[in-house]
Amino acid sequence: MNATPIATRMSRRRWLAAALLSVVLAACAPLPPGAAGTDPLPSWNAGPAKQRIIDFVRAVSTEGSKDYVAPAERVAVFDNDGTLWTEYPMYTQMLFVFDRIKALAPQHPQWQQQEPFKSALAGDLRGALAGGEQAIAQLVLAAQSGMSTEAFEGQVRRWIGQAQDPRFKRPYETLSYQPMHEVLWYLRASGFTTYIVSGGSQAFMRAFADRVYGIPPERVIGTRQQLEFQVRGRNAELLLLPKVDFVNDGDNKPVAIDAGVGRRPIAAFGNSDGDVPMLQYTTSGPGLRLGMLVHHDDAQREYAYDRASAIGRLSQGLDLYKTWGWTLISMKNDWKTVFDPLP
Amino acid sequence: MNATPIATRMSRRRWLAAALLSVVLAACAPLPPGAAGTDPLPSWNAGPAKQRIIDFVRAVSTEGSKDYVAPAERVAVFDNDGTLWTEYPMYTQMLFVFDRIKALAPQHPQWQQQEPFKSALAGDLRGALAGGEQAIAQLVLAAQSGMSTEAFEGQVRRWIGQAQDPRFKRPYETLSYQPMHEVLWYLRASGFTTYIVSGGSQAFMRAFADRVYGIPPERVIGTRQQLEFQVRGRNAELLLLPKVDFVNDGDNKPVAIDAGVGRRPIAAFGNSDGDVPMLQYTTSGPGLRLGMLVHHDDAQREYAYDRASAIGRLSQGLDLYKTWGWTLISMKNDWKTVFDPLP
Repeated sequence: MNATPIATRMSRRRWLAAALLSVVLAACAPLPPGAAGTDPLPSWNAGPAKQRIIDFVRAVSTEGSKDYVAPAERVAVFDNDGTLWTEYPMYTQMLFVFDRIKALAPQHPQWQQQEPFKSALAGDLRGALAGGEQAIAQLVLAAQSGMSTEAFEGQVRRWIGQAQDPRFKRPYETLSYQPMHEVLWYLRASGFTTYIVSGGSQAFMRAFADRVYGIPPERVIGTRQQLEFQVRGRNAELLLLPKVDFVNDGDNKPVAIDAGVGRRPIAAFGNSDGDVPMLQYTTSGPGLRLGMLVHHDDAQREYAYDRASAIGRLSQGLDLYKTWGWTLISMKNDWKTVFDPLP
Repeated sequence: MNATPIATRMSRRRWLAAALLSVVLAACAPLPPGAAGTDPLPSWNAGPAKQRIIDFVRAVSTEGSKDYVAPAERVAVFDNDGTLWTEYPMYTQMLFVFDRIKALAPQHPQWQQQEPFKSALAGDLRGALAGGEQAIAQLVLAAQSGMSTEAFEGQVRRWIGQAQDPRFKRPYETLSYQPMHEVLWYLRASGFTTYIVSGGSQAFMRAFADRVYGIPPERVIGTRQQLEFQVRGRNAELLLLPKVDFVNDGDNKPVAIDAGVGRRPIAAFGNSDGDVPMLQYTTSGPGLRLGMLVHHDDAQREYAYDRASAIGRLSQGLDLYKTWGWTLISMKNDWKTVFDPLP
């Protein structure tokens, strides 16, 4: 849990390189107009999205600025799926769940005849999810129950170290977005505390969020299953039960932020309609606020989807963003690179 | 929220004074045998409780020690009522609730004839609580609903700045225990993160925990009411509803620690049977662990109660503490002072 996060290490290296380069350039000759000094977001193209982030961070972190915010109140919240890493054509957690269902199938012969398990075992992922949220819940709860929270995180860690994305031919955790790593790093370097507030299972995300995003378990807020406290002799554990306790999406996201943070964030990043309430909560507090939505409009380098998609639908967000003063991030135009180059 | 905590400031001053004194003594003459070097817990009498805390902190924070624990995993959890401040003869939060009920009574004429409100309005606190947990919940929910979480915290802050304890003739927040302030300060100075995990309302405790204990809102875990996310025009708020969402006591304390911390603590301090599961969870992890129970045995300086008390009953804890390797803190024998002198 305490190793330096891979991705942060990578973005820090780049970030330092950019900073050093600008010092060297400054020492050698007057900078050409338009050449950035220290560019905190080197994977972003110049444009309104990049500018908005930089202006916001400078305004709230410059002492004496009329928009100055004390460090303890500099809280930024991030959705995970589709905002920090790829969620399309299927949430990564569901791919873990499908693999677990296959591994558990011999103990559950009835699954061969019973949906959504039958389709899942036949490799028909779309078919398995035809039953909507109820089917998803059935699969997730069957795959993620009957063990301690600590044993479960170990399972996720082993899986995520091995599984590969078929299109990009790389481990899932390297399908996180380099430009967003830079935002996380830039915010933390500017005194912010960064949280994940996402619909994924809290225990699933905690297994990699520290290493991949530099976000420790206590700042990962997600969907929760019921837990049972169990004491046997001198040993006490928390067991994951096959029941949903809290779905961290939509109106529940601000509620979860109150429970786990207890301060209204001043910056929020999302990508789907499930993030709209979190952005509304964040950006209606007093003072300068930042709300941003990643718009998946890049079929070539990643995927293009919004209003009509079952995964990561962005429709209400597109209707509301102007009124609320949020900024769309165009993956196609605003991001110089999407994924970090593999080491 | 960001001012230096009063109590921490006081304990820090003492702590620095003790440290400086030891340096001066060391410079002047050889220390007499038994004279402490830097005493991190000056309000504690020498004895097994004090020694256990110091030995534990040194073992887990000394690099190269076989019991060394990385700073990120140095998590310590504290119950609040009866562990960090006085809870007897009535939880401070209930005194706030009674005052709110009185203030709200003109809008609720039916309360004059209806228990538990009738007794509460007549000043008969014991009578008001005769209905047990259900009566407590009725009063709390009536007093703490229909406003935003932020407005509620403002109310608590105003109340706690004015209300006085009738026996000790001092504000309630100064009825926190000086020896426990020193433990909080000593742990944080040794790289620990300290959390409150208490049965009090989360929103109530957050209103003063930062100032009084140096524990910021994101590290205060408590009982929660249901919240409603409400958007009006360009404004979004969380409203406190008159429904209990989560009672943070007993078996629920480890569950809440998983939700809000995501790491198993290595040290836990409590005082009642409602803290036993939290101590079991904490002290059954691998490596060195610390479990401690404050035993209220000091009727003269505070109160004496344990097995037979309705408030803060300690019975199962007295049966189990030896088997589980926990240490009792005798308020009478282990604490040199109980409350910090008023400024």
